Amino acid sequence: MAQAYWQCYPWLVLLCACAWSYPEPKYLGREDVRNCSTSPERLPVTAVNTTMRLAALRQQMETWNLSAYIIPDTDAHMSEYIGKPDKRREWISGFTGSAGTAVVTMGKAAVWTDSRYWTQAERQMDCNWELHKEVSISSIVAWILAEVPDGQNVGFDPFLFSVDSWKNYDQGFQDSSRHLLSVTTNLVDVAWGSERPPVPSQPIYALPKEFTGSTWQEKVSAVRSYMEHHAKTPTGVLLSALDETACEWGFLNMGQSGSPKLPGPCNIQLFLKQQHIHQLLRAPKIIVCGNSEGKRAAVWGYRTRKPGSSKQVGLFNLRSSDIPYNPFFYSYALLTNSSIRLFVNKSRFSLETLQYLNTNCTLPMCVQLEDYSQVRDSVKAYASGDVKILIGVSYTTYGVYEVIPKEKLVTDTYSPVMLIKAVKNSKEQALLKSSHVRDAVAVIQYLVWLEKNVPKGTVDEFSGAEYIDELRRNENFSSGPSFETISASGLNAALAHYSPTKELHRKLSSDEMYLVDSGGQYWDGTTDITRTVHWGTPTAFQKEAYTRVLMGNIDLSRLVFPAATSGRVIEAFARRALWEVGLNYGHGTGHGIGNFLCVHEWPVGFQYNNIAMAKGMFTSIEPGYYHDGEFGIRLEDVALVVEAKTKYPGDYLTFELVSFVPYDRNLIDVRLLSPEQLQYLNRYYQTIRENVGPELQRRQLLEEFAWLEQHTEPLSARAPHIISWTSLWVASALAILSWSS
Amino acid sequence: MAQAYWQCYPWLVLLCACAWSYPEPKYLGREDVRNCSTSPERLPVTAVNTTMRLAALRQQMETWNLSAYIIPDTDAHMSEYIGKPDKRREWISGFTGSAGTAVVTMGKAAVWTDSRYWTQAERQMDCNWELHKEVSISSIVAWILAEVPDGQNVGFDPFLFSVDSWKNYDQGFQDSSRHLLSVTTNLVDVAWGSERPPVPSQPIYALPKEFTGSTWQEKVSAVRSYMEHHAKTPTGVLLSALDETACEWGFLNMGQSGSPKLPGPCNIQLFLKQQHIHQLLRAPKIIVCGNSEGKRAAVWGYRTRKPGSSKQVGLFNLRSSDIPYNPFFYSYALLTNSSIRLFVNKSRFSLETLQYLNTNCTLPMCVQLEDYSQVRDSVKAYASGDVKILIGVSYTTYGVYEVIPKEKLVTDTYSPVMLIKAVKNSKEQALLKSSHVRDAVAVIQYLVWLEKNVPKGTVDEFSGAEYIDELRRNENFSSGPSFETISASGLNAALAHYSPTKELHRKLSSDEMYLVDSGGQYWDGTTDITRTVHWGTPTAFQKEAYTRVLMGNIDLSRLVFPAATSGRVIEAFARRALWEVGLNYGHGTGHGIGNFLCVHEWPVGFQYNNIAMAKGMFTSIEPGYYHDGEFGIRLEDVALVVEAKTKYPGDYLTFELVSFVPYDRNLIDVRLLSPEQLQYLNRYYQTIRENVGPELQRRQLLEEFAWLEQHTEPLSARAPHIISWTSLWVASALAILSWSS
Repeated sequence: MAQAYWQCYPWLVLLCACAWSYPEPKYLGREDVRNCSTSPERLPVTAVNTTMRLAALRQQMETWNLSAYIIPDTDAHMSEYIGKPDKRREWISGFTGSAGTAVVTMGKAAVWTDSRYWTQAERQMDCNWELHKEVSISSIVAWILAEVPDGQNVGFDPFLFSVDSWKNYDQGFQDSSRHLLSVTTNLVDVAWGSERPPVPSQPIYALPKEFTGSTWQEKVSAVRSYMEHHAKTPTGVLLSALDETACEWGFLNMGQSGSPKLPGPCNIQLFLKQQHIHQLLRAPKIIVCGNSEGKRAAVWGYRTRKPGSSKQVGLFNLRSSDIPYNPFFYSYALLTNSSIRLFVNKSRFSLETLQYLNTNCTLPMCVQLEDYSQVRDSVKAYASGDVKILIGVSYTTYGVYEVIPKEKLVTDTYSPVMLIKAVKNSKEQALLKSSHVRDAVAVIQYLVWLEKNVPKGTVDEFSGAEYIDELRRNENFSSGPSFETISASGLNAALAHYSPTKELHRKLSSDEMYLVDSGGQYWDGTTDITRTVHWGTPTAFQKEAYTRVLMGNIDLSRLVFPAATSGRVIEAFARRALWEVGLNYGHGTGHGIGNFLCVHEWPVGFQYNNIAMAKGMFTSIEPGYYHDGEFGIRLEDVALVVEAKTKYPGDYLTFELVSFVPYDRNLIDVRLLSPEQLQYLNRYYQTIRENVGPELQRRQLLEEFAWLEQHTEPLSARAPHIISWTSLWVASALAILSWSS
Repeated sequence: MAQAYWQCYPWLVLLCACAWSYPEPKYLGREDVRNCSTSPERLPVTAVNTTMRLAALRQQMETWNLSAYIIPDTDAHMSEYIGKPDKRREWISGFTGSAGTAVVTMGKAAVWTDSRYWTQAERQMDCNWELHKEVSISSIVAWILAEVPDGQNVGFDPFLFSVDSWKNYDQGFQDSSRHLLSVTTNLVDVAWGSERPPVPSQPIYALPKEFTGSTWQEKVSAVRSYMEHHAKTPTGVLLSALDETACEWGFLNMGQSGSPKLPGPCNIQLFLKQQHIHQLLRAPKIIVCGNSEGKRAAVWGYRTRKPGSSKQVGLFNLRSSDIPYNPFFYSYALLTNSSIRLFVNKSRFSLETLQYLNTNCTLPMCVQLEDYSQVRDSVKAYASGDVKILIGVSYTTYGVYEVIPKEKLVTDTYSPVMLIKAVKNSKEQALLKSSHVRDAVAVIQYLVWLEKNVPKGTVDEFSGAEYIDELRRNENFSSGPSFETISASGLNAALAHYSPTKELHRKLSSDEMYLVDSGGQYWDGTTDITRTVHWGTPTAFQKEAYTRVLMGNIDLSRLVFPAATSGRVIEAFARRALWEVGLNYGHGTGHGIGNFLCVHEWPVGFQYNNIAMAKGMFTSIEPGYYHDGEFGIRLEDVALVVEAKTKYPGDYLTFELVSFVPYDRNLIDVRLLSPEQLQYLNRYYQTIRENVGPELQRRQLLEEFAWLEQHTEPLSARAPHIISWTSLWVASALAILSWSS
């Protein structure tokens, strides 16, 4: 993606030049985008020929008697990232952007996407496709109403429609005479045929007890207790979406490896006790084996050279799985007051894992495995009884929603599992904190390495990213990066989510700022941290902007607020110092984070649709500032929500940072900090010393230890001011003395 | 209301005493609430016998073949306050609380209300009524489903259901076999018969040009331009709700007097020029006459002794009208691209007003008057053409919504008129500011008077409220208070919306804090200000709480934020200083305010459903702190949203206070203020001096002028600190001198 963009850079310059002379350039003279108005049509090499694909789909539409077919951009679990077999809109249209809906009629085909992707769509789509520069469902419905005659059918796959999007489409067609038809067979999949990438079949393994906050049995009991105390007393809860699958994965303490080759099971507790694990994990490829609940269970993992970069993904690459950076497996769960049903590809379970789930259990605590494809029928069958089923509508598809009679349905925004997992218990907190200590070691090693190597001119964005990923992989319990490392120098950092590639990257230099946003997946936690540095002489503006971003981070981090306050209400504290002088940033201020789960874990965060803050939640705090064409700043820490001790008694919260890496002193203008901000910063630095210092010493990382000591020296503000008073006093005394003597 | 509460005070004490001994007191031994479980039933004297009323309603229900009838608590314009003829739920149930829905079936009757009103409902309802301690529509629907057999009809007046509440009821009944039936004849009104208070018939008058920001023709053009640029290009907009009526009132620059007796028209411009107006307005009763657009038009008004207190409302009381404190008239408007239709009681227009609306106009700019009752039919007829009608769903009832075919409907949250009027133009800003200068004079006079009289023990909450209302009424262009004055001493101020009565009030004393929240309606603006004072020695905690409330007011007032920021996102700045030590307040932080319109003007403010801030909006900023049983603090100012001049260029806003009354120095602990807060406060005080000082001098209010000068003296924080450095220097110099000599 980023590569494709950068390759067309000269054309963008040309386009800008054109823009000065023509009021409506319309891609005149550009060959990297399609031109369907010439004869013959002109297509760029990047365009995909979709004629055959459309013909195959239309044949299916005919079979099903559909005049239009809607193809959304999501999967059956409303995922943030989707796997290859789910990239249906991409396959049918050629357009690979992450957001956009396609509709195919017998005569036309169209894609709706937002401004980020307009150029990309013009480059990737052939002239079979119209491009609509809107994204609202109402504009899609309006187009269908214009194209599809009265009385005809408009088909869709109910497993790709969230309940809310179905409601919007349904309302749009309500007063028309077109019929919105739910078709559970996905017609794109049929058209795609054998070319469609296979659905994941990697084994599913149990996480060892050491890395979980509570047993899955305790979690099941917590959800059942939640159901009992729910105002509408549901008898069952359906966990259906990816974020819930993620969650459910945590809930059942299970994960999925990306490797098709399984090592034999072995005893992780033994390894831990014998302290072999440390050495094992430092090897280029590792095998971790596990024992949980006293039973033998397979646990394994593989190292990877460059996660997320498909070109380099090998056979043994843990991260080459369908859902990058996330150890999930596709599944649904129906948890009732008397049973636990897990819908999953059964063949992915080893005998050991099956035993782990069903040993010495009485019926309500035994996990019944059913095939993934059976979820709809099973839910329907369960719903025929005297039951009430709770769903979290945010992540549930119409495919399962439509089989539950309305009077048996209890809808909340999020399922109880999502709400329960948002709050980490003390063991989970301790696990996540210790993963952050090791993560800080990796980041500090990287910063020290940069300080030495950047001036030599031997580091670029890509090799830097590779090196920090490597450092993380060397840490205990590492399971690779938690997302693709953002390593951006100079003007590249102004693009908030830029990632370098092997082919296209910028050299790091002491003359410009450098931003690195990275994180790791560890068996005991997930990390995410951003630091911005400058090894030379920053401009006054860069220092001011950096300091104000830091002030924002501090102001939000040290804020005391009532329990159950929504993040949305307090996130502006991270912006105030920037706003004051007319600066701002265009992204959110933070997101929840999992324990060896999603690096972006809903529903915690600072957006309008996040849930209220509660003790035990983890969130990132990440203000920034981006100066187009020049530089970018972001300072991101992960924070734990803790009780605040207030002067007057009350139920108040505050944040406790668990990212333990100091900021760049070279970029801090202490004169801008208030005494309170400075005091807070120095206290935080003290915490970093206490947490990371001993670990560095233990590992004999003495250079890093010295660096840490130097970079966490207490800062003193307004020192010149105080000095001036003192020197005035001294000078006066001397003057008086000399005068009077 | 307040009176009724206070009369039961001894019983509340008893109840509390009971609460200690019994886990569930259930009103044992209380005679002020009903007891329907005894035989015979025991009713308090405050209970209303509704047997006959219910019988009359049920007879109507039988005629219309309804098994249940829903009676909401609103009027056809979704008003904040409703007029007497609209108090249908009050009449049928006896329960007078402002919030609550009633449902009557052939055998039962029930009211749903929230915790504020449970005791009140038990005091006012007889045993014909069930009380449900919930407010959700789903709980009402569940009850109806249990009470009403399959296949029966549930009736409602569509003019009393907002679009959203109708949708909720409709969804509730969707899968049941009961029919939700819209009946445009209100059955309670029929049952109420001749006893129902008459609907308002007071004349409607045009506001003189001097008091309006733009002509109604300009406003019509602005709305039409908005429609043309709307993405869905509506051909007409329907203004239907009270807040839009209010707005429309502004939009047509018209008002309504409360007097049935009209003076002859005369020329207000002449009065203004001859400076007679000042004297006239100071007389106990006044007549203001007007000329607008060069045509003679009637404008008049009357003084009142005690607005809002119905006991003292006389024949000539402007505020005895159906909508207290608001100069609205019931109406709808259908503004299309080619016509303006105003639905209103036509007999309320004088010939002059009719001319004002329709002189020298071409058709699209002539106002066609149609009868208020015709709105539904007229909208239906208009909707039969090739049109698209825009409505703001927040304030539109199902009564007009249901006659517009869905494909001709364009729905926004608010109508363009509400959005347009939220932003005041420069003339309106100047008008509102000048009303605030005069209002400040009244408040300062009051504070000076209190300072002299409270120590004598001659002032109580009620006489104080009367006096400040009187002072406001003496101001130029006064049209009485904008709401019932909140005058609360000591522990009474901890009740956020307490108002004293003639019978029940507390004496003001130098030993406790006093809170006064009051405002005025003036021809040029509406005001709303709260000050809290202490004439003796406040406790350290009182000073800290007061100072932190002030810090909150300052922090929000001085905030610089990007244009189009939502108030919800920044309101926590008004709370931070309190949160820091574990304090908070339980109400919103501010609301929009009109130009001689609503004192609470939607959709501006700091709630989640307010629109984004824009230059030219006015909002109150009013943090507080309430210590149960001891004292209450609120510091409320009205602020104009203005452009902020930032160091780096950008589209940023900030607030400019237009309330010009200093805070109580006796309660400010300057040591808590940051240098920035102090600097801001002193700058604000300077603005007060500049705006109000000359006005006080002009009026020879020399005592008040001296008070103002004294109370706006620049405050200096950390002065002791600076002094200590200086004295250290002096002391050192002296010591050295004496030692060396």
